[in-house]
Amino acid sequence: MTFFNRRNFIKSTALTAIPALIPFTAYSSQTIEVSNNSAADTEVKFFFDGKIYDPMEYVSVLQQIDAKHPIESDVYGNGGVIGELEKKFTEATGKERAIYMPTGTLANQLAIDALSDDKTKVIVQQMSHVFCDEADAAQAVFNKRLVPLAEGEAYFTKSELQKAIEKLSGSEYYYDGIGAVSIENPVRKAYGAMVPFDEIKQISEYCRQNSIKLHLDGARLYLASAWSGVSIKEYSSCFDTVYISLYKYLGANGGAILCGDASVISKMQRQIKIHGGNIMSNWTNAAMALYKLENIEGVLANVVKRAAELTIGLNKIKGIHVAAIPDGTNIYGMELSENVNTDKMRDRLKKEFKIEIRQPGESGKIMLSMNETVLNQSVTSILNAFEKTISS
Amino acid sequence: MTFFNRRNFIKSTALTAIPALIPFTAYSSQTIEVSNNSAADTEVKFFFDGKIYDPMEYVSVLQQIDAKHPIESDVYGNGGVIGELEKKFTEATGKERAIYMPTGTLANQLAIDALSDDKTKVIVQQMSHVFCDEADAAQAVFNKRLVPLAEGEAYFTKSELQKAIEKLSGSEYYYDGIGAVSIENPVRKAYGAMVPFDEIKQISEYCRQNSIKLHLDGARLYLASAWSGVSIKEYSSCFDTVYISLYKYLGANGGAILCGDASVISKMQRQIKIHGGNIMSNWTNAAMALYKLENIEGVLANVVKRAAELTIGLNKIKGIHVAAIPDGTNIYGMELSENVNTDKMRDRLKKEFKIEIRQPGESGKIMLSMNETVLNQSVTSILNAFEKTISS
Amino acid sequence: MTFFNRRNFIKSTALTAIPALIPFTAYSSQTIEVSNNSAADTEVKFFFDGKIYDPMEYVSVLQQIDAKHPIESDVYGNGGVIGELEKKFTEATGKERAIYMPTGTLANQLAIDALSDDKTKVIVQQMSHVFCDEADAAQAVFNKRLVPLAEGEAYFTKSELQKAIEKLSGSEYYYDGIGAVSIENPVRKAYGAMVPFDEIKQISEYCRQNSIKLHLDGARLYLASAWSGVSIKEYSSCFDTVYISLYKYLGANGGAILCGDASVISKMQRQIKIHGGNIMSNWTNAAMALYKLENIEGVLANVVKRAAELTIGLNKIKGIHVAAIPDGTNIYGMELSENVNTDKMRDRLKKEFKIEIRQPGESGKIMLSMNETVLNQSVTSILNAFEKTISS
Amino acid sequence: MTFFNRRNFIKSTALTAIPALIPFTAYSSQTIEVSNNSAADTEVKFFFDGKIYDPMEYVSVLQQIDAKHPIESDVYGNGGVIGELEKKFTEATGKERAIYMPTGTLANQLAIDALSDDKTKVIVQQMSHVFCDEADAAQAVFNKRLVPLAEGEAYFTKSELQKAIEKLSGSEYYYDGIGAVSIENPVRKAYGAMVPFDEIKQISEYCRQNSIKLHLDGARLYLASAWSGVSIKEYSSCFDTVYISLYKYLGANGGAILCGDASVISKMQRQIKIHGGNIMSNWTNAAMALYKLENIEGVLANVVKRAAELTIGLNKIKGIHVAAIPDGTNIYGMELSENVNTDKMRDRLKKEFKIEIRQPGESGKIMLSMNETVLNQSVTSILNAFEKTISS
Repeated sequence: MTFFNRRNFIKSTALTAIPALIPFTAYSSQTIEVSNNSAADTEVKFFFDGKIYDPMEYVSVLQQIDAKHPIESDVYGNGGVIGELEKKFTEATGKERAIYMPTGTLANQLAIDALSDDKTKVIVQQMSHVFCDEADAAQAVFNKRLVPLAEGEAYFTKSELQKAIEKLSGSEYYYDGIGAVSIENPVRKAYGAMVPFDEIKQISEYCRQNSIKLHLDGARLYLASAWSGVSIKEYSSCFDTVYISLYKYLGANGGAILCGDASVISKMQRQIKIHGGNIMSNWTNAAMALYKLENIEGVLANVVKRAAELTIGLNKIKGIHVAAIPDGTNIYGMELSENVNTDKMRDRLKKEFKIEIRQPGESGKIMLSMNETVLNQSVTSILNAFEKTISS
Repeated sequence: MTFFNRRNFIKSTALTAIPALIPFTAYSSQTIEVSNNSAADTEVKFFFDGKIYDPMEYVSVLQQIDAKHPIESDVYGNGGVIGELEKKFTEATGKERAIYMPTGTLANQLAIDALSDDKTKVIVQQMSHVFCDEADAAQAVFNKRLVPLAEGEAYFTKSELQKAIEKLSGSEYYYDGIGAVSIENPVRKAYGAMVPFDEIKQISEYCRQNSIKLHLDGARLYLASAWSGVSIKEYSSCFDTVYISLYKYLGANGGAILCGDASVISKMQRQIKIHGGNIMSNWTNAAMALYKLENIEGVLANVVKRAAELTIGLNKIKGIHVAAIPDGTNIYGMELSENVNTDKMRDRLKKEFKIEIRQPGESGKIMLSMNETVLNQSVTSILNAFEKTISS
Repeated sequence: MTFFNRRNFIKSTALTAIPALIPFTAYSSQTIEVSNNSAADTEVKFFFDGKIYDPMEYVSVLQQIDAKHPIESDVYGNGGVIGELEKKFTEATGKERAIYMPTGTLANQLAIDALSDDKTKVIVQQMSHVFCDEADAAQAVFNKRLVPLAEGEAYFTKSELQKAIEKLSGSEYYYDGIGAVSIENPVRKAYGAMVPFDEIKQISEYCRQNSIKLHLDGARLYLASAWSGVSIKEYSSCFDTVYISLYKYLGANGGAILCGDASVISKMQRQIKIHGGNIMSNWTNAAMALYKLENIEGVLANVVKRAAELTIGLNKIKGIHVAAIPDGTNIYGMELSENVNTDKMRDRLKKEFKIEIRQPGESGKIMLSMNETVLNQSVTSILNAFEKTISS
Repeated sequence: MTFFNRRNFIKSTALTAIPALIPFTAYSSQTIEVSNNSAADTEVKFFFDGKIYDPMEYVSVLQQIDAKHPIESDVYGNGGVIGELEKKFTEATGKERAIYMPTGTLANQLAIDALSDDKTKVIVQQMSHVFCDEADAAQAVFNKRLVPLAEGEAYFTKSELQKAIEKLSGSEYYYDGIGAVSIENPVRKAYGAMVPFDEIKQISEYCRQNSIKLHLDGARLYLASAWSGVSIKEYSSCFDTVYISLYKYLGANGGAILCGDASVISKMQRQIKIHGGNIMSNWTNAAMALYKLENIEGVLANVVKRAAELTIGLNKIKGIHVAAIPDGTNIYGMELSENVNTDKMRDRLKKEFKIEIRQPGESGKIMLSMNETVLNQSVTSILNAFEKTISS
């Protein structure tokens, strides 16, 4: 029996537990403290999807980058390191063109808007960022009707999609079709659970047969790729547009990339401008993301391996039970024995071992996000730290 | 055991049965044949919510009206018979002001837009006209996000509303509240089922306590009033804005009235104009509706009584079973024995007795709409007609 | 030397004189009194562009129409007499399809919106209805930027258009072209002055060469045709979409027709619906317009002839000077000698001769609108009436 | 007689000369080369409004800043150095609240949208950034109708504004007032010319008396303040909202500040989000701008003084004529004798003296932008450089 039963797990916890999740997804809220510790390279932080650089670390990385390959500024998103970054992403995704955007919200919204054209209906996951966390931008600014499927689930299947479309088409007098379908993968609100690639392929085929455009909110697509073994290009080939974030695990302070056909992407510069997103110079984000992109696949492969080792090791420690999320990526659930003083343990882990873990959520589980900082200490020393601090 | 179990009945039939319903709601589709029969006053038609006048009948009624009280044209919706009509509706609803609109869709949309102000979220019944039958106008034109509740049900309860709002407020980072709640009553897609008045009062109280504005899509409000015994004014007192149709049972060719506070209604003339709804002269609709309005409550009271008599009488005929919709208004479900040749029976009813009934829906039931034409023949002669034609 | 020097005349009077013009364009304002006089067929009214029927006259015409050819109602704008009317207008304009709309404002706005697609800039006459009298619908609802040309003039020339486009394209960093050009012809605010057909042909050619779509606000196009001798089809051939009003001289209470390519018009039904303009039954307008349409060209040809005769005749009367508007249609300017008591004269004309004329505008001129009512009395009797009443 | 006659000068050159101006305003176009020269502190560049840092210079300044006062990152625009910056701007402008925005376009548009509420009409200068350089965002996204005044002029007067409003109110049937007035000061497209403060005060008073909200596009407000002697607070007191850019002379790579009443600014976070402008971390811009802000008034005071000295000195050199723009700020026009080989002179200035000047515009004048780089060399050495290179 698995620790988490996918569909049930998400269903039973996600909806009632949301207030408790807020610290868990703290970086999307407004209260996170960013560490200024300069000895950052020995720290292990079991939250966030990548390393978060404090300002002077950030600046220092930029200097290292420039030393190898001088950073050239873009001008209003054109040329310089932005041009290099866009080229890199067209190669990674196999799409004709890529364009830098200030935020993932803008990337998602403009993609959906362009793909759906005059049609209003856009199908999304009920738990998706587009539906829950973009402040109703789709309706308020882009005149779209989001149709949420798979309430409380990570994803909808091809057959659920088809059924939903058939139901819609039969129940509205003025039905004029589906403008687009958007899929978030992996799904942040579902603890990073993935949409199975086979399901994606079926959805993609169905959409193409029915002339429905398909967008991928792949903010954390490299995580999906690392845990599923499906390449960025394979994922991208199923979609008309693909958005990838520059700040989840690519180190930047912000920014997003949208990839797609030239006919779609060529409309974006004006769209970015009229929505007020055309920033004069974006090299601080682009240079960092370009630099991290070079090794991201290797780094994440190591994190996947390390996550497996840690899971096995932690489960051998008395009082600890760790399990992956079904179809999961980098988030794992850890349960501690009831008699463990969690506050003390967290405190000691941080002070004595430079290891930070979240507080338990409402379900009592502590969610561990595996990211590149888990490579900063050896498996042995991390396991040792947990063993020491739990037995106190 | 009731013939129809409300919640279950609607749930089980409404969604799968929709294609079959299209003839049933034919007047909303595009193919209805309008009778030109001049002997119309002895015909009984068990469909539509009122009498539908063919052109020369219509013209003749206008002449009768003018003979008693000369019809004065409005000018772009101002003055004349439009002014009289608006005055009548402020009296009926107890609201400060009323304004003529070309369509109910515009009345609903403009009311919701005005009440919700800058907020995007508007809660509606999933089966409501606003959600299913206004071609996504709320999203496409008015930048609103409709949040559907009570899927497959006639209505949501106060407690379901409250729970839905609490869930929304806990699951979105940028939650900024509910702009408005809209209630359709009675609900056309739910076979005219009503929202219980006690539920409306509770919802109204909850909304006022939480500063949420409340709109009534009362296209067929006079039907609800006739079957529930709750007055138009009582219903209206629970809502901030009330829309009532002029062509369901008030005889007009089109048009709608929106009632509410002066502060809301005073914005409407400009809104009507910019959405292209400011028509030069509307007296043909206003004069007819004003005329029918005078007696509508008495007429419908008779229809209610007649519907009860017919139900009792029809149920005494072997092979016929008739039952009201739970919380229903003027639509009743009739089942015929399996051995009845429905086509023949319909044909004979029409030819021999000037009685028209619908074809059976997918569930096999024939929905009978009670309207003022059921007063055109006596109970005895109608029952006689059914008895004769079923036994053939 | 002409009485009115076109460009200068309009320039010098139109802008400063606007408050004075309000009675002149009274039917667009909200205060007009509609006569209920039953002896209407001997009245001559030198205002409006056609005969305005009071309610019982209107009803009586509908009965006459039905007697010859039974009126069949449309259902939500489909079929019946609406279908006949649309067919008639496709023949008249030579366009692929025609569609009924509730108002000219909606027809203009939806046409411009469809033609201009994603582009914002739409070029219009500064004095046009679209720019001045549609309550900023283009900006408020349709996200268009109207670029007004020819301030205070009836029209812009092809060369002015070209210059304006070149200037725009050179002065904006994000210039993305012209979405559409809209031309009103004749121009109501310019006293019915026409755009010369040769200018229209040049503009049309320029637009086609530059892939710019061209819309005609031909609300009063039959007036232009009658006074210029250019057929409706010739005018229409220069434009992508053509709107013609049903209530200026076609007798209806409201309504408009939009003609164009099937690819454009086929989008309109949904657009009408989401803007709240889809009215259940529109036969009262359609039947009247269809009936008047049959003879409109003959009737207006007689009005043109009569207008010439009246102009000549009136100019022979001492104290009266009448002149056509340069490039004008049915509006003529009349100046009376300073010693004439205008109020008395208007009063006597009405009471003794059943002739109504406007009050003088700010410039002192009385604008005479020639319409079919000038055929209700003979030239001799009209001239006699003016002669008698001026000399009192 | 002045070198440039303000109104005539701008009128005669601005419109025809626009293509030639593009290099002049190059930083708004897409082709500018950003220097990577590390010996930047001795360079004098007579273009841009401030010093433009190349990436490694930028990084180095951030390190200096952090050394004095550790830079704390914001989280999605909240807290950290963004909080400090917003506080600083509330003090500078005297407004209740300030908020960081990714771009000036977003700041302008959101301010105008909030101030004008439901009204469509917003009055702007025809030469303003809002009207010409924001890609019709006001119409395409915010449903506003921009009404341009003062074509080809730097500004409109209070009396022109009043006249325009009176004309609008008299010429539209559905006139519903002016939503807001926006003033750009100084005006970039008018070579940095200012709106005289006395005119601003009169406009402000007029707007308050008429309940019309007033926005200041003060992207370069510190330039206006330095050249006019009117403080930021004095300017701000005349307006409801004030936008100030962070990258014209405050060194940042991008970003803007919008100041105003708490009731207006408190709406902005959600607005920024739905338009896709909510970036995760913005400390690179905020820290730089905060640092430069500390001395900006002193630095610009020196630039003003230096500009005067250079003007006097350059005018003493044979073959050079320099003059300020009437009501101008930091842009001066330089004419060279016809026999000067401008290309050679520019080349020598750069190579031998590290002084860069623009190419001549279409009018033949070379526009000199005075900025803090003119303090990098002494007056004597700059004058010497011009003298040497002109006589070659």
